[in-house]
Amino acid sequence: MDGSVSHARKTYLTSDSGLKVPMRAISLTNGGSVRLYDTSGPYTDPSYEVDVERGLPALRSAWIARRGDTAAYEGRAVRPEDDGRAAGPARMPSRAPARSPRRATGGAVTQRAYARRGEITAEMEFVALREGVEASFVRDEIAAGRAVLPANVNHPETEPMIIGRNFLVKVNANIGNSAVGSSSRPAGPDRPDLPASIADEVEKMTWATRWGADTIMDLSTGPDIHTTREWILRNSPVPVGTVPIYQALEKVGGDPAELTYELFRDTVIEQAEQGVDYMTVHAAVLLSYVPLTTRRRTGIVSRGGSIMAAWCLAHHRENFLYTNFRELCEIFAAYDITWSLGDGLRPGSISDANDEAQFAELRTQGELTKIAASYDNQVMNEGPGHVPMHKIKANVDLQRELCDDAPFYTLGPLTTDIAPGYDHITSAVGAAMIGWYGTAMLCYVTPKEHLGLPDRDDVKAGLIAYKIAAHAADLAKGHPGAQAWDDALSDARFEFRWEDQFNLALDPDTARAFHDETLPAAPAKTA
Amino acid sequence: MDGSVSHARKTYLTSDSGLKVPMRAISLTNGGSVRLYDTSGPYTDPSYEVDVERGLPALRSAWIARRGDTAAYEGRAVRPEDDGRAAGPARMPSRAPARSPRRATGGAVTQRAYARRGEITAEMEFVALREGVEASFVRDEIAAGRAVLPANVNHPETEPMIIGRNFLVKVNANIGNSAVGSSSRPAGPDRPDLPASIADEVEKMTWATRWGADTIMDLSTGPDIHTTREWILRNSPVPVGTVPIYQALEKVGGDPAELTYELFRDTVIEQAEQGVDYMTVHAAVLLSYVPLTTRRRTGIVSRGGSIMAAWCLAHHRENFLYTNFRELCEIFAAYDITWSLGDGLRPGSISDANDEAQFAELRTQGELTKIAASYDNQVMNEGPGHVPMHKIKANVDLQRELCDDAPFYTLGPLTTDIAPGYDHITSAVGAAMIGWYGTAMLCYVTPKEHLGLPDRDDVKAGLIAYKIAAHAADLAKGHPGAQAWDDALSDARFEFRWEDQFNLALDPDTARAFHDETLPAAPAKTA
Repeated sequence: MDGSVSHARKTYLTSDSGLKVPMRAISLTNGGSVRLYDTSGPYTDPSYEVDVERGLPALRSAWIARRGDTAAYEGRAVRPEDDGRAAGPARMPSRAPARSPRRATGGAVTQRAYARRGEITAEMEFVALREGVEASFVRDEIAAGRAVLPANVNHPETEPMIIGRNFLVKVNANIGNSAVGSSSRPAGPDRPDLPASIADEVEKMTWATRWGADTIMDLSTGPDIHTTREWILRNSPVPVGTVPIYQALEKVGGDPAELTYELFRDTVIEQAEQGVDYMTVHAAVLLSYVPLTTRRRTGIVSRGGSIMAAWCLAHHRENFLYTNFRELCEIFAAYDITWSLGDGLRPGSISDANDEAQFAELRTQGELTKIAASYDNQVMNEGPGHVPMHKIKANVDLQRELCDDAPFYTLGPLTTDIAPGYDHITSAVGAAMIGWYGTAMLCYVTPKEHLGLPDRDDVKAGLIAYKIAAHAADLAKGHPGAQAWDDALSDARFEFRWEDQFNLALDPDTARAFHDETLPAAPAKTA
Repeated sequence: MDGSVSHARKTYLTSDSGLKVPMRAISLTNGGSVRLYDTSGPYTDPSYEVDVERGLPALRSAWIARRGDTAAYEGRAVRPEDDGRAAGPARMPSRAPARSPRRATGGAVTQRAYARRGEITAEMEFVALREGVEASFVRDEIAAGRAVLPANVNHPETEPMIIGRNFLVKVNANIGNSAVGSSSRPAGPDRPDLPASIADEVEKMTWATRWGADTIMDLSTGPDIHTTREWILRNSPVPVGTVPIYQALEKVGGDPAELTYELFRDTVIEQAEQGVDYMTVHAAVLLSYVPLTTRRRTGIVSRGGSIMAAWCLAHHRENFLYTNFRELCEIFAAYDITWSLGDGLRPGSISDANDEAQFAELRTQGELTKIAASYDNQVMNEGPGHVPMHKIKANVDLQRELCDDAPFYTLGPLTTDIAPGYDHITSAVGAAMIGWYGTAMLCYVTPKEHLGLPDRDDVKAGLIAYKIAAHAADLAKGHPGAQAWDDALSDARFEFRWEDQFNLALDPDTARAFHDETLPAAPAKTA
């Protein structure tokens, strides 16, 4: 759980109103220092005492309460099936909620609703300081729908961050257990009361934020789904996303045909009350699009897309997420859940990139983006996937046009399919390019993609590759401040300030270790 | 030294005239098979008996002799200083040359000279089969200077390959010892007669070609420079490049001011007689360009560029490589050495990309490219280096324009400087893009770049990243045949043919191992 970054100090920027925004400071041997964006949360503050039982401080609680537009309520009772079909009888007592869930008492309580009214919230002020821009700019970008600030009122532990093409490119890390990888694991030695799979996921979350994850998605499908998510949320300093249909499917024993809108809505509310900040919803996979995938080389590869396509075909009815979209918008508005409109028909291979199935769904994403906007919802659009380099830009251009510049959130894309085991690299190429072209957040891919479940090393490898992609995109977009980091490292390199070069590196430990392998003597490092 | 690729077979295409072109064949569980370009040489042919003392068969000797335009001669006597200042008395007997060197008896014996006369050589025919194109197209591209076929008459062991924007994108791997990394190493246990540093480099060469290196550069600066190169050349199935100024500098004890043109020319002849196929020569670093670098963040980072700049400043005279360029063209024409016109003023940081120093040198590269063409020389141009994404395309466009479409050969470029330890990734992004834009060969970067000397694992990591970049570029350029590999793997993935997916992977061993970690049972792989 120790997230300290070697040779870095936690520091805070303080706003006029007293907000403390965390940064990572690196002191240089020449007397200078460099300050970097920091996603690692309180864990890297030596004065913070980690207690995962208690969870993180509820930084935003006072801000939310002060707005006076939400109220606590009893909330939905947790049921055994919330922990998934693999759970059987609850394996550990559900954690007693430290506080009742809140929801809107009147209109939308989304950051977008406030922005549209011209208000600058504490969250926006925090983000402005974090990104080095004016708070009014943050507000205007959110109001226009060009950026989202995912911040469920029930996840007050989150440190506000923003996702939009005119801000630093962000990176998401997927974590989560599965029945295959985790169900038979015993309790961990450190925490005999906590199933190992839960401890693993909390550990992966802190590890991911330590290496720069701006958000994490909990994609658990194994045991203890509800409980795992509760532990993650209470301890996560970054927004948490989910794909609610995964949990809904577990509740019906894994048969897509058994899904209902009512069950899905109940699952959304369950997760909304826990504090999930954004949700992937495959509402744009329409019945009429499914036949478009039959001529594909690799059909439908998105899990959510496959589930909804199976439901549509089984009932020969339109996707219930699409037909009930407006009610979901009302729910999202009451908690400030951000839409991540899924791309269930994304290509699963280079061969299928930019085909009619993919772009038909994107057009429907655009339609839904406009509807969500009318409910003051915050909206992102998910994108592919597997795309050769020459077809990447068209994805961004079309998404911007169809979805009114809503933030694009892409998985990679992988630029070739020939390198399983190295898809963090095949996709970092595409991620860097699509980030440059305007994608706001990049969902990482680990070396285990297509092969197995990522472990701790894979999570780190995926994050490093994606932080490289995101930063290369920031440089290419000319983001103010991005170049300063490179310049500081280049100066250290040119002046043979080895220690500074290591400490400024994205991964100081590896840079130092690689150097030591061949030139172990200290004089070589300060020469 | 064992280069066999797991689950792959060596196979040969046979031309009408009886040429045998090696390929790597992968048999699929569904009865199909896929044939891939193969750089690994005879080592992966189980019927070939490896003997590094004897070296590889001289595949091209008969072709060269048949042309009747070269003759064997006594050659330059090898001198103790040829093995570098670190050598002292020769540490092992120089290997007796198996054959006398050859050179032209009349005009140029370059592939370009033949192409311009309308001749299709055996080398061109070999390449045509290897690339799947018409031999006349190969000839025309070489004649126009848009492609090079590096093939010194004294390196008959090489399997002909071509470098040009209208062919598959190629990858070079740098190897070579250094005084720091290798001088104190004892002889290896396997070959007590062979200094470990030589055995290491021969091993690295075969390892690199095993993982797809299309050419290798021997950048040795440590002990036994001449002898190491001899062993590499006699055992290398791919063209070998060098930077002769490195060896020349060792001969004068490391002081650039002591260099002379005569010494350089003698070194070129020494290496020409050994069979070096292409040489990096920093002839475009002009005296007047050196002051342009003083305002840079990271000055001159190319070693060759630094050496020539130091010489120019010490003598306040024009670069002797520039003033003697025409005589060097005559030498290159007599052995068919391909120019790799160095970019001694390439940027060493994101901050310095595309500056006046860099582009001034590129203009002079263009001038020299035209002069070399008038001698029927084959010419490539080297390019950067460190370039943010949005400045990459300008490099290719300008090089094409100034250098008459001569093949561009770039190092990366790195797209950010913040990730020492991961520069194979920061640069694979740039390499893929610049390959797509038209760069013909990519010089790999290993994870140890800027930090230390690459070991075996680093060589592999660098090559995998660069084969990904090159192949992604081939896909984006729409190279016929490139897509077929991806399609075969995508089909295997969609049909859960796990064994085929592993065997088709760029690195079957890693793909298989990653899968096994989480799903070890055989049924999981054939499900």
